[in-house]
Amino acid sequence: MQSLTQQLSFIRELDKLKAIRRKALVQCDNNRFENSAEHSWHIALMAQVLKDYAEQPVDINRVVSMLLIHDIVEIDAGDTFAFASQQELDAQQAIERQAAERIFGLLPEEQYQQMLQLWLEFEQATSADARFAKAMDRVLPLLQNVVNQGGSWAQHTVLKSQVLQRNDYLQQLAPKLWNYVLEQVDMAVAKGWLIDQ
Amino acid sequence: MQSLTQQLSFIRELDKLKAIRRKALVQCDNNRFENSAEHSWHIALMAQVLKDYAEQPVDINRVVSMLLIHDIVEIDAGDTFAFASQQELDAQQAIERQAAERIFGLLPEEQYQQMLQLWLEFEQATSADARFAKAMDRVLPLLQNVVNQGGSWAQHTVLKSQVLQRNDYLQQLAPKLWNYVLEQVDMAVAKGWLIDQ
Repeated sequence: MQSLTQQLSFIRELDKLKAIRRKALVQCDNNRFENSAEHSWHIALMAQVLKDYAEQPVDINRVVSMLLIHDIVEIDAGDTFAFASQQELDAQQAIERQAAERIFGLLPEEQYQQMLQLWLEFEQATSADARFAKAMDRVLPLLQNVVNQGGSWAQHTVLKSQVLQRNDYLQQLAPKLWNYVLEQVDMAVAKGWLIDQ
Repeated sequence: MQSLTQQLSFIRELDKLKAIRRKALVQCDNNRFENSAEHSWHIALMAQVLKDYAEQPVDINRVVSMLLIHDIVEIDAGDTFAFASQQELDAQQAIERQAAERIFGLLPEEQYQQMLQLWLEFEQATSADARFAKAMDRVLPLLQNVVNQGGSWAQHTVLKSQVLQRNDYLQQLAPKLWNYVLEQVDMAVAKGWLIDQ
């Protein structure tokens, strides 16, 4: 049962994602920082709920699979703030690739290759499925920041243009959700949570 | 956009599952209690990794969908310990049904009905998909307890027979995993983590 031993070792390794903190706060739980495991659950379910807003054909099951694994590399590489500098984001990329090889590499060869390819597809946004998954990953923090009085935007001085650029996939893939984002961003600027630039 | 307003209200409500504590400990994060949101992520991904052990045909995408929503009722009903008395488990059932109606009821009618039916199918274990999902939900705590020196078993004086009964779905659906469970349970008895009854 070499395969089972490998699979269980991967499943146990996943526990570590519960220790990786994001910038978002969980307001209903004493404003503690959100971790990447619960975040992954939240957006996987969110993608299912919002799937009909996709205006290009997407395979929601592949989207869910991507979202379940998209942050696993953070076990080794840590969470990168969405609005980090391009230099920081580039440095992160190589580290995350190594992390993907180590962690997915705990699995038997065939599953390893499948997970690695799925994660690369997400990372490189090379399909409509991946772009929809990325759109979900990017719009949820926006919803959270609006509920949390500006949340990580207000704390890190983020610009309106950065948020709009980051939600660009949504504009192409789910225009109705994009319109909602525009409304929320305008409100956030009016409240002083985002800088109007 | 009444539908979107309803969907976003459901998505925001989900945050509360991050505040529901289970009995399992997250060893790599200062031994804090695990929450039901991160647990849901963990078993959804685990089910994907172990899907080939199912000896009856299961639709893994439905299994994943069930696992993503199976604990949402705990937002209102709280977590029930796996080895609670039958009386406690029965009382919990009515409370969880009400919770399902309130929380899934935040969604537009069609999605509400779909989620409610999927949750009932899981709860009542009326399909191979539901039984495989339940088997995953039950075997992960076993893996966690073995890693955590007996974990919640040792703390709550659990019997070997209770663990075997609880993993009964596995025996039917995934005999190879069942054999692994038997080995682990015997080891747990030998270590004094489970009572040999």
